[in-house]
Amino acid sequence: MPIDRREFLAATLATGAALAAAPSPAADREERVRTKDDLPTPALLVDLDKFEANLKKMAEHCQRAGRAWRPHAKTHKCPEIARRQVAAGAKGVCVATVPEAEAMVAAGIPGVLLTSPIVERGKIARMAALAGKGDVMLSVGHARQVELLAQAAEAARTVVSVLVDIDVGDRRTGVLPGEPAVELARLIGRSKHLKLVGLQAYAGHASHVVGFEARDKASRLALAKAIETRDLVTKAGIETAILSGGSTGTYNIDSTIAGVTELQSGSFIFMDADYRRIGGESGAVYLDFQPALTVLATVVSATHPGRAVVDAGIKALATDVASKPELIGRPGLEYTLAGDEFGVLAAIEGAAVPALGDRVEMIVPHCDPTVNLYDRIYAVRGPRVEATWAISARRESEKL
Amino acid sequence: MPIDRREFLAATLATGAALAAAPSPAADREERVRTKDDLPTPALLVDLDKFEANLKKMAEHCQRAGRAWRPHAKTHKCPEIARRQVAAGAKGVCVATVPEAEAMVAAGIPGVLLTSPIVERGKIARMAALAGKGDVMLSVGHARQVELLAQAAEAARTVVSVLVDIDVGDRRTGVLPGEPAVELARLIGRSKHLKLVGLQAYAGHASHVVGFEARDKASRLALAKAIETRDLVTKAGIETAILSGGSTGTYNIDSTIAGVTELQSGSFIFMDADYRRIGGESGAVYLDFQPALTVLATVVSATHPGRAVVDAGIKALATDVASKPELIGRPGLEYTLAGDEFGVLAAIEGAAVPALGDRVEMIVPHCDPTVNLYDRIYAVRGPRVEATWAISARRESEKL
Repeated sequence: MPIDRREFLAATLATGAALAAAPSPAADREERVRTKDDLPTPALLVDLDKFEANLKKMAEHCQRAGRAWRPHAKTHKCPEIARRQVAAGAKGVCVATVPEAEAMVAAGIPGVLLTSPIVERGKIARMAALAGKGDVMLSVGHARQVELLAQAAEAARTVVSVLVDIDVGDRRTGVLPGEPAVELARLIGRSKHLKLVGLQAYAGHASHVVGFEARDKASRLALAKAIETRDLVTKAGIETAILSGGSTGTYNIDSTIAGVTELQSGSFIFMDADYRRIGGESGAVYLDFQPALTVLATVVSATHPGRAVVDAGIKALATDVASKPELIGRPGLEYTLAGDEFGVLAAIEGAAVPALGDRVEMIVPHCDPTVNLYDRIYAVRGPRVEATWAISARRESEKL
Repeated sequence: MPIDRREFLAATLATGAALAAAPSPAADREERVRTKDDLPTPALLVDLDKFEANLKKMAEHCQRAGRAWRPHAKTHKCPEIARRQVAAGAKGVCVATVPEAEAMVAAGIPGVLLTSPIVERGKIARMAALAGKGDVMLSVGHARQVELLAQAAEAARTVVSVLVDIDVGDRRTGVLPGEPAVELARLIGRSKHLKLVGLQAYAGHASHVVGFEARDKASRLALAKAIETRDLVTKAGIETAILSGGSTGTYNIDSTIAGVTELQSGSFIFMDADYRRIGGESGAVYLDFQPALTVLATVVSATHPGRAVVDAGIKALATDVASKPELIGRPGLEYTLAGDEFGVLAAIEGAAVPALGDRVEMIVPHCDPTVNLYDRIYAVRGPRVEATWAISARRESEKL
């Protein structure tokens, strides 16, 4: 039985979702009254109460700390979530790919920063075209990228905003800090079609350091190189408004470092088992944010004692990290991957094993690449499914 | 510049693709003359020469061995490839999920066997509905599944063909061999809406055993339980035409076992690094089939000596196996995963490192879940892109 629109809105507001629903309730698909039990499995769920609490906490943290906030949308790849982040105070979103940038601009999201380097002419032309339509910026880490982007911006008769991406120890992307970065900033300044707006310093190697003190040290060491580089850039007569960095693991570290103007922290909106294990300021489990993202699975085989097989395997849970899925409300069960389609739940110390047809819910090991396996997220409050959100930015946008 | 249809067909035939193109050239998207260099990366490629050689080899093997052949489509999730398999002699395809079954039936593929157990009422109803439209079969491993399926088939006023799924040592799905399987066969026989057509015995635990002799032993041991069970079923007065089993690792073992009527081998069409390491009948590398599936990536950062960063990470290559991506034509380079978006190529023993903007091509570690990360496969012959095939069966078919 479909519920009507007024009833849906009333229910949404009544359950305290005013903030989350504000940006575009119309874009939510209105659901028949559905519960988790009605969903085909494996299904990706976001718990709205936890999601909203995470959103509020980060928004308030950034406001108190006087920092801007541009959460990484590669975590969710979902325009509906980006809208909620912007409504909560984010100045925009970071993205990792050109299709993600295109999807966010198409959804009207402002301040879209592409954090990954691109060197293919086709992608560079797409970003230059996008700069003519929306509010986008690119990170660049090499003279060749600057050159190609300047040519594409000229061809598109536009001016593209760029950040110099600095490798502060992550050893993946960016130019080396110090003089090489200053040189790249100068090169950008020489093009009429590029506008240097800031620096990017993502310390990916610091984000998952276990233990708060060690993490604090790693992140400060990394960002000191960025601050030093910014000072050199300023000394060379080049103004940069933005210094963008930060991760979910270091949000409360980086926001105390003078000079860091905005945080890119993204995973906090969902959290995952791998972030939980890094520990918080006090305690061995990182509890600053609540685990909001789960996979719902069904027991499809239970032939052997002490063992149940669920329909969630490699295709349902990203398996790149050592952390295992954490079963909710079922103590003494351990998940092991068992191929593309299956996982095995083994009972330890005589725990009760779910029966054939039973459902289990698991906190995901690694949120971003797990989201990448799905086309939709079911937004649930308690047992009820309130909306279905398309993970539309995960797709290559070129039509088939 | 688009090439016209006649020219396209002529080119296809001229390059010896008659067999592969035969089933539905009209369904191929005709491409502008494109080469690999034109593709945005990361991109999933299938080498048509190798793909066609693999297809031909398996088809001829099965014909010689007098076995039917129902390749597993969970490997490719692609109706275009299923069509080519059927045109080459396959009696149908196996599938692992309900959306895969629906996509294959919609594409007109006959003999679609769902090999994974389902217990959700919604999915069972969808399969019963599908049985009314196409030629489908389900594997069942538990009395509860039989009961639910019989109810759904009755409600849909249809008769559904089923196989008894036997757990021959894989410990994931299926009923135990011997009396429990016979009991399940009897239960199926009591429903007017179910038709028992055979047994399924997938020895997943044998498929990747390293070394031919050890693998031969493991597979024979497993399938002996299936044969024994079939004899008991026959003795109980129940006829079963099909005994379905086999994997890419054991195709030339299982096809010599009396009683195995058809092979489910799927990965052979693409091969992957993880199958290569299991060894063949002679030699440490398994060379029976050629590695046809690759990921094309671009070097997007090259800041550090002896190290290049490519745009293919967790989202581009399934990382559940120990095997690494194998770089083609670039000796002395080793790939390491570096997050969602990136991989690092490290030079060993002073090998040449590709430069910024260079492209590299890698044999994938594990074919099935890598395909699951993409929306399309580019079918290439040499440098030329001949077609783009939609991986349409990977999606949940329920509309968003």
